[in-house]
Amino acid sequence: MKIQQTIKQNHLGLLFQQGSFGIEKESQRVHADGSIVTTEHPKVFGNRSYHPYIQTDFAESQVEIITPPQHKLEDSLRWLSAIHQVVLRSIPEDEYLFPLSMPAGLPPEDQIQVAQLDNAEDVAYREHLVKSYGKNKQMVSGIHYNFQLDPELVQTLFKAQSEYQSAVQFQNDLYLKMAKNFLRYQWVLLYLLAATPTVQDNYFKQGSPLKAGQYVRSLRSSQYGYVNDPEIKVSFDSIESYVESLEHWVKTGKLIAEKEFYSNVRLRGAKKARELLNNGIQYLEFRLFDLNPFEQYGISLADAKFIHYFVLLMIWLDETVDQNGVELGKVRLAEVALENPLSPTQYAAEGEQLLNQLLAMLQEIHAPQEISEIVQQKLQQFADPALTLGGRLVQAIEKAGDYQKLGAALAQQYKANAFERFYALEAFDNMELSTQALLFDLIQKGIKTEILDEQDQFLCLQVGDHIEYVKNGNMTSKDSYISPLIMENKVVTKKVLHKAGFNVPQSLEFTSAEQAIANYGLFEGRAVVIKPKSTNYGLGITIFQQGVSNREDFAKAIEIAFREDKEVMVEDYLSGTEYRFFVLGEETLAVLLRVPANVVGDGKHSVAELVAAKNDHPLRGDGSRTPLKKIALGDIEKLQLKEQGLTVDSIPDAGRIVQLRANSNISTGGDSIDMTDEMHPSYKALAVGITKAMGAAVCGVDLIIPDLHKPAEPSLQSWGVIEANFNPMMMMHIFPYSGKSRRLTLDVIKMLFPELPN
Amino acid sequence: MKIQQTIKQNHLGLLFQQGSFGIEKESQRVHADGSIVTTEHPKVFGNRSYHPYIQTDFAESQVEIITPPQHKLEDSLRWLSAIHQVVLRSIPEDEYLFPLSMPAGLPPEDQIQVAQLDNAEDVAYREHLVKSYGKNKQMVSGIHYNFQLDPELVQTLFKAQSEYQSAVQFQNDLYLKMAKNFLRYQWVLLYLLAATPTVQDNYFKQGSPLKAGQYVRSLRSSQYGYVNDPEIKVSFDSIESYVESLEHWVKTGKLIAEKEFYSNVRLRGAKKARELLNNGIQYLEFRLFDLNPFEQYGISLADAKFIHYFVLLMIWLDETVDQNGVELGKVRLAEVALENPLSPTQYAAEGEQLLNQLLAMLQEIHAPQEISEIVQQKLQQFADPALTLGGRLVQAIEKAGDYQKLGAALAQQYKANAFERFYALEAFDNMELSTQALLFDLIQKGIKTEILDEQDQFLCLQVGDHIEYVKNGNMTSKDSYISPLIMENKVVTKKVLHKAGFNVPQSLEFTSAEQAIANYGLFEGRAVVIKPKSTNYGLGITIFQQGVSNREDFAKAIEIAFREDKEVMVEDYLSGTEYRFFVLGEETLAVLLRVPANVVGDGKHSVAELVAAKNDHPLRGDGSRTPLKKIALGDIEKLQLKEQGLTVDSIPDAGRIVQLRANSNISTGGDSIDMTDEMHPSYKALAVGITKAMGAAVCGVDLIIPDLHKPAEPSLQSWGVIEANFNPMMMMHIFPYSGKSRRLTLDVIKMLFPELPN
Repeated sequence: MKIQQTIKQNHLGLLFQQGSFGIEKESQRVHADGSIVTTEHPKVFGNRSYHPYIQTDFAESQVEIITPPQHKLEDSLRWLSAIHQVVLRSIPEDEYLFPLSMPAGLPPEDQIQVAQLDNAEDVAYREHLVKSYGKNKQMVSGIHYNFQLDPELVQTLFKAQSEYQSAVQFQNDLYLKMAKNFLRYQWVLLYLLAATPTVQDNYFKQGSPLKAGQYVRSLRSSQYGYVNDPEIKVSFDSIESYVESLEHWVKTGKLIAEKEFYSNVRLRGAKKARELLNNGIQYLEFRLFDLNPFEQYGISLADAKFIHYFVLLMIWLDETVDQNGVELGKVRLAEVALENPLSPTQYAAEGEQLLNQLLAMLQEIHAPQEISEIVQQKLQQFADPALTLGGRLVQAIEKAGDYQKLGAALAQQYKANAFERFYALEAFDNMELSTQALLFDLIQKGIKTEILDEQDQFLCLQVGDHIEYVKNGNMTSKDSYISPLIMENKVVTKKVLHKAGFNVPQSLEFTSAEQAIANYGLFEGRAVVIKPKSTNYGLGITIFQQGVSNREDFAKAIEIAFREDKEVMVEDYLSGTEYRFFVLGEETLAVLLRVPANVVGDGKHSVAELVAAKNDHPLRGDGSRTPLKKIALGDIEKLQLKEQGLTVDSIPDAGRIVQLRANSNISTGGDSIDMTDEMHPSYKALAVGITKAMGAAVCGVDLIIPDLHKPAEPSLQSWGVIEANFNPMMMMHIFPYSGKSRRLTLDVIKMLFPELPN
Repeated sequence: MKIQQTIKQNHLGLLFQQGSFGIEKESQRVHADGSIVTTEHPKVFGNRSYHPYIQTDFAESQVEIITPPQHKLEDSLRWLSAIHQVVLRSIPEDEYLFPLSMPAGLPPEDQIQVAQLDNAEDVAYREHLVKSYGKNKQMVSGIHYNFQLDPELVQTLFKAQSEYQSAVQFQNDLYLKMAKNFLRYQWVLLYLLAATPTVQDNYFKQGSPLKAGQYVRSLRSSQYGYVNDPEIKVSFDSIESYVESLEHWVKTGKLIAEKEFYSNVRLRGAKKARELLNNGIQYLEFRLFDLNPFEQYGISLADAKFIHYFVLLMIWLDETVDQNGVELGKVRLAEVALENPLSPTQYAAEGEQLLNQLLAMLQEIHAPQEISEIVQQKLQQFADPALTLGGRLVQAIEKAGDYQKLGAALAQQYKANAFERFYALEAFDNMELSTQALLFDLIQKGIKTEILDEQDQFLCLQVGDHIEYVKNGNMTSKDSYISPLIMENKVVTKKVLHKAGFNVPQSLEFTSAEQAIANYGLFEGRAVVIKPKSTNYGLGITIFQQGVSNREDFAKAIEIAFREDKEVMVEDYLSGTEYRFFVLGEETLAVLLRVPANVVGDGKHSVAELVAAKNDHPLRGDGSRTPLKKIALGDIEKLQLKEQGLTVDSIPDAGRIVQLRANSNISTGGDSIDMTDEMHPSYKALAVGITKAMGAAVCGVDLIIPDLHKPAEPSLQSWGVIEANFNPMMMMHIFPYSGKSRRLTLDVIKMLFPELPN
C-alpha cells in the first residue's frame, strides 16, 4: 500500500488530515484524601444504560466520560471539558475525580462495588473479570482514543489504486496497516506519555514487585497492568486471520468474549469481529494512554494532536509490519514500560528516527506549523527523559511526598476550578449562558446533543428516534410560528389579548407625530405611556405617571418615540409593580421581580464602597458572560444619586436604600428577585391563559400587579398585561440575585421529551 | 340633554368625532343592457347564510354588500371597494352591478326570483312582502348607513350629567335624540343626496304617476317607494313608547314582524325591540340613501363624512323634537321627495339654517377643515339645485337619452375598472399582492377577516369560534416556530436535510477567509458554489460551474462572500435546472420554472422594441404592485447583450432567444412558467418529504433536477435540494407568465379551516 505516493500525487494532504475523533476517559470517584469512594454512581445522571456521555466502567466508582464524535480535536476537548464540568458539579460535595490512572486508597476488595448495570450479560462479564484478574486491576483508569479517517479520503485512495477490487477489503487493509504499525511503534508514545510510574502496595495481591523508591514508565502497560495472558496471540495479518484467531480464543474459553482481548488497538465498526469482513473497519480505538494528571481533563490538546499525526504516520510509512513486527512491538512496549522514567530509553535511536520521519511527513502534507513544533518538543524528550510526562510526574510525586497526596491535591484543585464560574460551561462560553445551562442539563441527563450552529445557538437533541431542535435555549417546535410573530408586534398582541378577554391597557396608535399631537385632547390629564410600536429594549418610551399636563411635553414624548419606529402607541399607564412570569405549557414556572440597581446603607461605607462590595457578588460581571451585571457609577447613576441628595462619597444611614437607576433592567445592574412562591396563584393562572392566547408553549408574560397577595379581579385596577415575550430570558430565573433558583432548562427538556422518566 | 355644553366644557371634541361605521349596499345584477338577470346568486360566494360581506336582499338577483364595522370612514369605503371588486370579478362574465337605486328592465313579476334562503322564517317574510307590496317595490336598492358613537363618549357624557341615574336609559335617550332630530331634518339629506328621479313605467302596477318627462327628487323615499302604510305610526318619544307602539302593530297584524317597520332610522343592538330596554340602543341604522351612480361603489367618501357630521349635529342641537316634530319631518320628506330636482326646495331656508348650525358645530369641536369645506359645498346646493346629486343625475339621464342606458353604460365602465389590475385589491394596495389575493378569497368565501396590522400584513380570520392568524399570506399557526428558524440558517438546513436522508450538496463552512483559502486544495478542480451562510437575496454568491482552477479566483470569491456574512459555505455545484416547489401540507401544489429575462426575436423588431412589447404584458410593472417586473435595459442587460454580440438596436432572427439577464429572479424581469403538470410526481413527493423534515406546513423547496420527466433516484446526479424557504412567494404561482394559475391562497384558507365545505 503506497499511501504516501498517492497522497502526494493527488494533493490529498488536507483530506488526509481530516477525520473524526472520540475520547473515552475513565476516572475514579474519590474522597478528599484521594481514596476511592464506595458510593453508588450518582442518580442525577439518570440511567447509564443509554447515557451517551457519562457511564460507569468496571466499578460503580469508576466514571467513564465519553465525547461524541467530532471532526476537530479542539471540539473533542471542549466536550471533554464540558462533560467534566457537569460531572464535577453533579457528584456529591465531598467527592472528587482522581486525576491519575493508578488507583490510590483502594478499599478492601469486598467493598469494591462492581458497576450495577441493567444488562445481565454485562454483569456476568464483570463477574468473570473479577475471577480472572481480581478487582484491583480493574480499578486502573485510562484514556481510549478513537480515530476515523475521512471516508472521502479512503474512497479517493481506493479509486487511485488498482491492487484492490473490493473497497471494503481496501479499507480493512488500510486500517490494519495503521493498527499493525501502531502496535510496532506504540512504545514511542508510551515513552513520551506514560504516567503510571508507581502504585500503592495493596494494589498487588502478592506484594509489590517494585523496590522501595523504584519508579517505572507504565505499570498500566506492563505485566502488572490489566493485560491478557501472554499466551493469547491474535493475528493482525489480515482481517480474516484476525477474526479467526480471535474467535478461536473465545471458542476455547480462554477469553469469555471478544471484548476481553485487551489489545492496545481495537478494530471498530461492528459488534462482532466477523461482521468486519463485510462492513469493513470503520475506525480504530487506541487504548494505550494513561491519564495525564497535569491536565484537568486527563489529556492535553497538544498530545491529542500529536497522537493524531502519529497514527497518520502509521499509514504514511512505506512499510507495513507483519505479525512478527507486531509481536516485536509488544515486547518492546513491555520493556519500555518497566524502564526508569528518568533514564533514557534503550530504543531512543529508533524513536528519534520515527519522529524525524513524522516531521518529514508533516512537511509533505503541509500540516500546520504548530504540529511540527509539538513533534520537535517530543523529539527533545528522547535526550532529556525528565521532560517526558512520566519524568515530570515522578518529580511531582517526590515533591508532594506521596502519590496519593499529589492526586488528592490535584483532584481538589480541578474540582474547585469547575466551580469557579458555576453558572457557565466553560468550553461553550461563546454561546449564550442559557444555552450553556441547557447543555449542562442535556449532558447530565444523557440526551444526545449535536451543536448544529454555535453562533446561532442551534442544537439538535435526540432520545431514541425522537429528534427535537432548540434555538436560543427555548425556541422549539412546541411553539407555533404565528405566536412569535404576534408577540413581535405590540399592537397585534394587544388586539389578540383584548379579544381573548384579558385586561389590556387601552391605547391608540399613530403613524405620524402631527396626527398624534392633534389628538392631544384625548389624553390630557390621563396617565399614559408613550412608546414605539415594536421596539423591545425600552428605547423611546416616556411615562406620564401623573397624567399629561401640557401639549409641549406630550409632543416631545411623541417625537422621541417616533425616532424608534414608524408607528407609535399612546397607552394608558397602569400603576402597580411589574412582574415577569415565565410560563411553559400549562404552568407558570417562575415569577421574578426586577428591582432597579441599588445598595443598602450601613452607616459606615460610602456609596462607592457599597457598590464595589455588591459588585463582588459571584453572579455579577459584564452581564453577557455572567447572569447579573455589575452596577456602574456613570453619569446616569450619579444623577440618580444627586436626586436623592447623595454623591458617590456619601455614607448612607444604615438600612437606607439608595437607588442608582430608575429603570429595573438587569442589564443596568438591577437585582432579580424570585417571587414564585409569594405570587397569588390567580395571577399565575392568568399568565398561563395569556400564553395560550398567544399560541405559545414558552412565554414571558409581564403583568402589572398592585398587590401580589390579593386574588386577581377582572379589572385593570387589579392587574393588566403589558407585554408577552417569546424566547424569554431564563438565566435571571435560574440564577436570581435573591430567592430560589428555578432550573427552567430542565423543564424545557421535559417539554421536548415527555417520554423521559422524571 | 345638554350635550353641546358638556362636550365644550370637557374638551370632548375629538372623542365626539370617534365612532364606528358600517355600510350596507344593495345592487341588482344586470345584463349588459342594464336589465335585471334571472340567474341564481353565484355559488362561488358560498353559503350566504353565514357570509359576512356578500348576501342577497329580497331577490336572488339583488346582491347586498356589507362592510365590517370600522372606526374610520376611509376604511369603510376601502372595504366597500374591496368587496365590490370581489363581486364584480366573481359574477358571470356577462353580468354587471346596476349603479342606480331604481331597477331597470324589470322582468315579469313571475320571473323575479325571491332570495333562496335556508331559514324558513326569512322565506315566509319575503312571501308576505310580495303579497303586501308586490315584487317590484322590493327590487329598489339603497344604502344603509350604520353609526355608533364611541362608547367612551357615551360613558363620559353620562358621568358628566346628573339628570339620569341609569346609564342604559341615558344611552337610549341619547340615541333617541339623534333618531328624532334625524327624522325631523332628514329631508335636508334627501334634497342633497336623493338619486331616484325616475323609473320605467312597468315598475308601477297601475301605470306611472309621473307625467312624461317629469322628474322628482326621490321616488324611493316617496309614497311610490317601499314605505309602510301611512296609518302605521311608531312613537319615538321614549324607548318604552317605541317598543309598545311597535309591538302593537305586530300584534294587530298590520306588520308581519318588527323589521317590516321601514323607518329611515332603525334602533339597533337587539333582535327584538323589547331587549333594548335592558341592553340599550347600541347604534343607529340610517336607511335614507339612494345609490350614487357617479360613484363606483354607490357612495362618495365626502358624502359619507357629511352624513357622519350631520348625525352628530342631531345630538349637538339643543332641542330634541317630540313626536310631532318627527311626524312633521316625515311629511316634509315626502314633500321634498316629489319636488323637481332642478328647482329649489320650498324649505331651503330651514336647510341653510341647519347647515350653518353644522358649520358652527364643526368650529366648536375642532373638526378637520375638510369637513367644513364639504358642508360649504352642500350649502351652495340650496342656491343651485342643479348641483345636487339629483340635479346632476337628471342632466346625465337627459344626456344619455334614457335612464336604463345611463345605468348600463356606468355598470359596464365600473366592471371594466374592477378588472384593470385584476391581480390586486385596489383598496388594500399598500399591502403585499399575496395578502391582497388572500383577502380576495377570504371576502369571496365569506370568512370574517380583521386586518390587525396593515404594515405587517397581519390578519385575523374567524369561522364560528375558530380563530386563525395569518401574516404575509402564509405564515400561520400550522408551522412550528423552529421550522423557519431552521430554514433561516443554511448550514442547519443542510444538516437537518442530510440527517433525514435527502440529497444535499456537500459543503464546508469557514469563519475566516484565511481559513477558507488555506483549504483551497480541497476544492481544486471541483465545481462549487461559494456563498454567505445566511443571505437570501443572491448577494455574495460565486459559482464555479466548470470547477475552480486557480487559487486567486477562489480567494476572490471567498472575499466577496465574506462581505455578506461572518460565515461562508463552499458547496458542491449541482448541474441541472432549478425548480421551485410550493408545498402545503401533504401536497406539492405548484412547481415553477424561473427563466432569466429574455425576448424572442421575430426578424423584424429590435431588441429594444421586443422588450417594450414584452413589457406591455398586463402582469408586468414595478414588480411590487404587479406580479411580474418589466425588463430593464440598464448596464447589466446591455453587457449581457454584448456577450451575445447584440445591442439594443440589433434585430434578432426570428425564433432566436435573446438573454437579457444571467440570473433567473422574477425581480429582474425573469419569466415564471408553471410546470406543475409536467413535473414527474416523484420529485413532488420529495418536496413534501423535505417540507416535513423542516417541520413546516408551508414551504418553498428549490430542487435542482437535470431531467424533470425521469423519476427521482437516490443520488445527487438525479436531483439535489439547494434551499428550503419559509413564507414562500405565492404570486408567481397565482399569476405566472405562462402556464396554469395555481390559486394557492385558497389552499391556505383550506389548511386553516378544514371544516369549511369545499
